[in-house]
Amino acid sequence: MVRLQISLELAYEVTAPGSDFIFAFHAAQTRHQRIVEERLNVSQPVHRTLTLDPASGNRVMRLQAMPGTLRLAYDATIDVAHHIALPEQIGEVPVAQLPAHVLPFLMPSRYCESDRLGRFAISEFGTLWQGYGRVQAIRDWVQRHVTFASNTTDGNTSAVDTLTERVGVCRDFAHLMIALCRALSIPARFTTGFDFGADPALGPPDFHAYVEVWLGGRWYLFDPSGTAIPMGLVRLATGRDAADVAFATIFGTVQSQAPVIRLGAETDPARHMEWPRHRPEALSTDAGGLDEVLRPA
Amino acid sequence: MVRLQISLELAYEVTAPGSDFIFAFHAAQTRHQRIVEERLNVSQPVHRTLTLDPASGNRVMRLQAMPGTLRLAYDATIDVAHHIALPEQIGEVPVAQLPAHVLPFLMPSRYCESDRLGRFAISEFGTLWQGYGRVQAIRDWVQRHVTFASNTTDGNTSAVDTLTERVGVCRDFAHLMIALCRALSIPARFTTGFDFGADPALGPPDFHAYVEVWLGGRWYLFDPSGTAIPMGLVRLATGRDAADVAFATIFGTVQSQAPVIRLGAETDPARHMEWPRHRPEALSTDAGGLDEVLRPA
Amino acid sequence: MVRLQISLELAYEVTAPGSDFIFAFHAAQTRHQRIVEERLNVSQPVHRTLTLDPASGNRVMRLQAMPGTLRLAYDATIDVAHHIALPEQIGEVPVAQLPAHVLPFLMPSRYCESDRLGRFAISEFGTLWQGYGRVQAIRDWVQRHVTFASNTTDGNTSAVDTLTERVGVCRDFAHLMIALCRALSIPARFTTGFDFGADPALGPPDFHAYVEVWLGGRWYLFDPSGTAIPMGLVRLATGRDAADVAFATIFGTVQSQAPVIRLGAETDPARHMEWPRHRPEALSTDAGGLDEVLRPA
Amino acid sequence: MVRLQISLELAYEVTAPGSDFIFAFHAAQTRHQRIVEERLNVSQPVHRTLTLDPASGNRVMRLQAMPGTLRLAYDATIDVAHHIALPEQIGEVPVAQLPAHVLPFLMPSRYCESDRLGRFAISEFGTLWQGYGRVQAIRDWVQRHVTFASNTTDGNTSAVDTLTERVGVCRDFAHLMIALCRALSIPARFTTGFDFGADPALGPPDFHAYVEVWLGGRWYLFDPSGTAIPMGLVRLATGRDAADVAFATIFGTVQSQAPVIRLGAETDPARHMEWPRHRPEALSTDAGGLDEVLRPA
Repeated sequence: MVRLQISLELAYEVTAPGSDFIFAFHAAQTRHQRIVEERLNVSQPVHRTLTLDPASGNRVMRLQAMPGTLRLAYDATIDVAHHIALPEQIGEVPVAQLPAHVLPFLMPSRYCESDRLGRFAISEFGTLWQGYGRVQAIRDWVQRHVTFASNTTDGNTSAVDTLTERVGVCRDFAHLMIALCRALSIPARFTTGFDFGADPALGPPDFHAYVEVWLGGRWYLFDPSGTAIPMGLVRLATGRDAADVAFATIFGTVQSQAPVIRLGAETDPARHMEWPRHRPEALSTDAGGLDEVLRPA
Repeated sequence: MVRLQISLELAYEVTAPGSDFIFAFHAAQTRHQRIVEERLNVSQPVHRTLTLDPASGNRVMRLQAMPGTLRLAYDATIDVAHHIALPEQIGEVPVAQLPAHVLPFLMPSRYCESDRLGRFAISEFGTLWQGYGRVQAIRDWVQRHVTFASNTTDGNTSAVDTLTERVGVCRDFAHLMIALCRALSIPARFTTGFDFGADPALGPPDFHAYVEVWLGGRWYLFDPSGTAIPMGLVRLATGRDAADVAFATIFGTVQSQAPVIRLGAETDPARHMEWPRHRPEALSTDAGGLDEVLRPA
Repeated sequence: MVRLQISLELAYEVTAPGSDFIFAFHAAQTRHQRIVEERLNVSQPVHRTLTLDPASGNRVMRLQAMPGTLRLAYDATIDVAHHIALPEQIGEVPVAQLPAHVLPFLMPSRYCESDRLGRFAISEFGTLWQGYGRVQAIRDWVQRHVTFASNTTDGNTSAVDTLTERVGVCRDFAHLMIALCRALSIPARFTTGFDFGADPALGPPDFHAYVEVWLGGRWYLFDPSGTAIPMGLVRLATGRDAADVAFATIFGTVQSQAPVIRLGAETDPARHMEWPRHRPEALSTDAGGLDEVLRPA
Repeated sequence: MVRLQISLELAYEVTAPGSDFIFAFHAAQTRHQRIVEERLNVSQPVHRTLTLDPASGNRVMRLQAMPGTLRLAYDATIDVAHHIALPEQIGEVPVAQLPAHVLPFLMPSRYCESDRLGRFAISEFGTLWQGYGRVQAIRDWVQRHVTFASNTTDGNTSAVDTLTERVGVCRDFAHLMIALCRALSIPARFTTGFDFGADPALGPPDFHAYVEVWLGGRWYLFDPSGTAIPMGLVRLATGRDAADVAFATIFGTVQSQAPVIRLGAETDPARHMEWPRHRPEALSTDAGGLDEVLRPA
């Protein structure tokens, strides 16, 4: 178990009245990720609703802002105790045996055109042994063949674009890995989170995007951009792809400032767990059922 | 209320063992669409599972076929008594007040790139009065600007393609209408069904695709391809777009025959309801809540 | 006739040896645009070749730079005396009567997918009277339906993208207008130039992109982004689209500075010609034949 | 030298008056491909023009048909004596030394988005020895990674699509190979022709599409779909991609029949030249200059 602290500040200049915001920056609460404490400050005295999406477990906050400055400050202390398993014991699940709530993650989505990648995925990964190792091979292929570079892609960039242009940021790596998994009938979803293990040389902490793949009856974590230590990932929201889980979706004329994020750990996730370089372990923040998402206390 | 009969036959030649099928051809069961009787025959003695998707209410059947011929015959008698409302009394719902289960239908999806159509949608429909009438105007625009022509599009064709090329089939009309609604922050989803009112001159009965839009607290029906009489639509499945609700998704090497569909009505849906030419009415098969999907008796 | 002065400075930091540059910033020399004087300074003592492309009349300079700073300064004095005609006397040319050298400009190109826009172009412009007026209507449509905004598009943006997203810069306006003309079997090409009439409030002078359309036996100027006074356009290069006529195409690892451009006129092109607000005139820098491109003195 | 016979029949039902046709089915005449005899019959007594495009050497015939049936029959006897060279002696040409008329074939075009493939091409082929062998490696990669299958692609399919979906016909193989060459700054163009060596088991003779690459001062032949014996290729037209050299481009409402093609050889091109399995040879129908295109006698 590691205890982690998140501190997040967002700021907007709202120019039109009635600008709607959908936020998805609250930490998820699952059997393996418990919110010890959390606090939210919103600078405007507006009504806000926080709902728990029944299908995903995402905690979605909505509000309608007034013109002027809107500031949000979110602080949380979170205990993460991943489910840990041995990769060689984790198998793929035949389509006929997948739970119904997993089926949508087999299908193509806005940024993951898995329907177009079948021949490529089968020729590249079709003969590998099925199981966790094959998914790891997909992860490794994406990391090896795509170059990480800021400001090379935008909100329109999809998995097919990344397979073509071979460059992008964590979101693009995730989309390509997801599309390749689905093309092989392996359910995969897009996850946003905070990354406690990122190299400080890469710049200040930022939102991170990674992948969860349904194997052996639960969702396992994979980080195709390779920048994160999975033990130090705090999950915010999951969806089919980035379209579902933007940390802020804004309807209206608004100027945004870059988010300010501070991360802290009482125990260094990398040291504590001796992960990932020395022990190959499969990690999951998920207990496999729809009922495993808990309402925060 | 109209009582309708469906008869559907599907046939496949399966060449590889272990070919998985996901079928979504069972009629939905809702407060406004009740299954009086249904019967399914499957030619192969294989295990099959029929699940009710918790998020969509779709009834999804899966099986793993053996090599050889696979035949399915589905017959159902269905009572449809749409919720009927007056268009002028149906408003759009502000984003902040949408139920959580509706939010996914605001987001772009594989075939509905609403994120790219914001400027166009606002310039074309942004100044219209909000409400059912504006959605009807979107429906009319799509019908007027797109030409219906078979074999002009394929499984890769998206809303942006249809806006560009201005030709397609019912699925393409639906995708474009959905993308335009979402670009205006109006939730919209893709629905498959049978169409009892189609002009016989257009060929034998086929699966139909249309649109449901969240207005005034429930999903209302719109048929942008304009070929159907909404009162005669029997709903099968709903999803973000065609990727979610194919009547058959096949994993394996399989040859398909064209489906054979027979439709019957004890009362002519068009005559009985005098719809749609004489009375403008808004129709819904939905009662607005997630709990309105019923398990078939 | 107006006498115009161009002054252009380009600067690059070349990091790898053997970086090739293809430049297309020399003013074209035609019967209607004569180079009175020009001067080029290149900071590196490298071999350079200046060729006159036989098909386009473009003056293309190539060189292979050494590591370090590469600076180019180009100054030219140019007399422009456009061919001027009355719009109502200029007709479209049937395909069968087009000169062979014009045919490539009927075909789709990298950024002008005219093959996909046939139905749209015909439904929007198909019933208009053929001739200069119809092309002017296409120009006006593009200007009215696309919003000019910097940094909204990139080197991958094509006419279909612009028709979808309705935003861009002069290059995007030009690509969309060209694609619509070709979709109606009207030859159109992409032209780069300097724009002496641009509103100084829009920022410092920059390279401009506009359109030439083959009508009545020669190429006529159209400026769909609407920022330029055609009488003040100095033509550099023409091609099928922006892929052909970048002012600099670079093969190698090079950092570029923004070009510095100064424009001067002995007589104000706008005042002198009282163009375009008061007299509708059709302008051409072209005399219609391949032989009208002159070698600079 | 081989002497080859072509017989081609085309048939159209023209429904609207004034339907324009651009045909590019005449055999090219070069120093290495001489037309011994040719004959054209056109069923309608309409005016037709045959022009020699100055840039490409393509022979383009235009006519405006009357309503009714239009039949064309073209017969030609052609002597082909390719320029033959040893692959290991053929190098790539630096950009700075390319003739001006070759530069357009470095640039991206409608179906060859080479601007998007730079990172991929460099990572896959960037470290290979430059020269004919590297281009052969590109050809082999395309043939190995793309599956030949009829009716899987259409007139909208581009190189990026083929790199994604890994399936297509000869035209798609050619587009992908061209795009990869250009991404490495190697000029490449699209060529249409007849293929005398195709396996009869693949169906009746058809138009073929292949690639010419500028190496060592002339255009060399490559056939990435691998179906043809290069010695038996008769060149019709060359262009940037398929958009330029359709054997028939039609403006109007016309129904087409499949072309009927008969090919004959006085000497079997495969046998005579013992090509290609036993001797690796580089072939060219081109003598390197713009002036090498000859007017047919």
